Amino acid sequence: MKPLIAVCGSDEDDENLGDKALKIAEEIGKEIAKRGAILICGGRGGIMQSACKGAKEGGGITIGILPFSKGEANPYVDVAIESGLGHFRNYIIISSADAVIAICGRWGTLNEISTSIILGKPTILVKGTGGVVDEIIENKILENIEGRYLIARDAKEALDLAFRFIR
Amino acid sequence: MKPLIAVCGSDEDDENLGDKALKIAEEIGKEIAKRGAILICGGRGGIMQSACKGAKEGGGITIGILPFSKGEANPYVDVAIESGLGHFRNYIIISSADAVIAICGRWGTLNEISTSIILGKPTILVKGTGGVVDEIIENKILENIEGRYLIARDAKEALDLAFRFIR
Amino acid sequence: MKPLIAVCGSDEDDENLGDKALKIAEEIGKEIAKRGAILICGGRGGIMQSACKGAKEGGGITIGILPFSKGEANPYVDVAIESGLGHFRNYIIISSADAVIAICGRWGTLNEISTSIILGKPTILVKGTGGVVDEIIENKILENIEGRYLIARDAKEALDLAFRFIR
Amino acid sequence: MKPLIAVCGSDEDDENLGDKALKIAEEIGKEIAKRGAILICGGRGGIMQSACKGAKEGGGITIGILPFSKGEANPYVDVAIESGLGHFRNYIIISSADAVIAICGRWGTLNEISTSIILGKPTILVKGTGGVVDEIIENKILENIEGRYLIARDAKEALDLAFRFIR
Repeated sequence: MKPLIAVCGSDEDDENLGDKALKIAEEIGKEIAKRGAILICGGRGGIMQSACKGAKEGGGITIGILPFSKGEANPYVDVAIESGLGHFRNYIIISSADAVIAICGRWGTLNEISTSIILGKPTILVKGTGGVVDEIIENKILENIEGRYLIARDAKEALDLAFRFIR
Repeated sequence: MKPLIAVCGSDEDDENLGDKALKIAEEIGKEIAKRGAILICGGRGGIMQSACKGAKEGGGITIGILPFSKGEANPYVDVAIESGLGHFRNYIIISSADAVIAICGRWGTLNEISTSIILGKPTILVKGTGGVVDEIIENKILENIEGRYLIARDAKEALDLAFRFIR
Repeated sequence: MKPLIAVCGSDEDDENLGDKALKIAEEIGKEIAKRGAILICGGRGGIMQSACKGAKEGGGITIGILPFSKGEANPYVDVAIESGLGHFRNYIIISSADAVIAICGRWGTLNEISTSIILGKPTILVKGTGGVVDEIIENKILENIEGRYLIARDAKEALDLAFRFIR
Repeated sequence: MKPLIAVCGSDEDDENLGDKALKIAEEIGKEIAKRGAILICGGRGGIMQSACKGAKEGGGITIGILPFSKGEANPYVDVAIESGLGHFRNYIIISSADAVIAICGRWGTLNEISTSIILGKPTILVKGTGGVVDEIIENKILENIEGRYLIARDAKEALDLAFRFIR
């Protein structure tokens, strides 16, 4: 069975979401596919869409766990899972993943990062992508709190870290 | 996006599960793949394993939504989703499917059939496969109760019915 | 901690739902309260409302696990839990209960009965209340299928059975 | 129907959890009861237990949504809901609440805070209680991220804020 790697991050309507973060998401998606893993994500726009686009460029498979309907899926999703669970679907994405990579993001992404940490998944924050991810890294908050995350500077390092910790 | 078709039915420890039901499950899996759909199921043994085996023979993709761990997956599952939800994962399987096909089965399969009907999914029972499916068909119970199921006599008819109702 | 007893059954729009079933639901609600247990249910109309009404007459506490909004609760619900999970909330009702009593009902009630049986909860069907419950009892279907239910003829017997099996 | 107010925070094994935070949790529990609301929480130790203790002192009702078993409940829980959902039960607690009050806490509490904010619930952080709550307040992180929380300095202010926003 191929490993599942989750990519979490801003939807397209996030004002903090910039081209750099989208480009990294696409590189990470491509790298996931090239290394033989399957991309799992929330299936919508922004970071999720760029990651799916990259995974398809790399010849991979993309799974989107949607809040309610397939109509919400971006055009690069191969398998659209209609969870019927709304925001609660975040849990299924993280629970299914062998490793979780977070890029930029808002409170929804923080919800996925915190779920990942409490479920004990390898959790990788990509530095320099803005949003909640850089807020956590730059303020060094939460570093005295039990449960740990890893910091990557680019797509290659994110995948190296993910594969180092995949069981 | 390819349609998702769920196959539900007995795990391998069901005493009522016979070779005929397993053979039909395999044929249905193969037919799902040949018609360009993706198989989604509970990912374990018995009917689920035969359906996955068939789908792989047909060149398709198989998704297994597992109660807890990937270790529970049969060898024909391509994408193993660790839901962390136990029996509650039945809901995710049905919620994600464009059509649901049930073969033999016990109370767990009845749980999936009833979920499928209350969610308004096309729900196909395969006649002659034993278990809960034939109990429902033969006793004509529940036919005066709102919410309907369809009856198929073989793999081909099951898929014909599924595709007739896929949006 | 007081035991939790779930009452499941038809919503008010079920054509098969008659006065007898509603009266038994009310008696069962009252009996739950009198014996010191807490009523848990789906919080809506029909059987659920009659059971809640009875529990309040008996001086008890009523919990309603609602699909989405408090606005769906009947006037006898003390604690309205907005699950945000739609039909999926059935699982939470059953998972929480120490025993489950089913009255009349359609596919949604069958979903709760089957969940109760696969979770290994004491599951009591009240004979003579119509709907799915009597279909199961009268046709003696599913009796060769692993997993068992108990049959009660009135409110008193339903509660006697529930308390016999509460851990 | 009485409003439901959730109290989230550290379990008893959190090294950052001090007597001040526990005392505030107890005062908040008592205040919830006195103002006619019902306390809902994770049902376990630490902040949850102190809040339940306070609510019982105030003559109120306490609901504990447990990860798996009633055996995990603290002695002040009146209604123990066995969700069977593990950490996923966080979502049910928040989804059910009319307002959410967070005290101290680690990643699990951050998971609840972020769920509360994405579900649009009034979310109150109690300043000076340490842990994740003070990390967020002191570093003023996430304040440029959409979705907002409120800051309270004591039990009275926490409840004033909660009731100001309850529909």
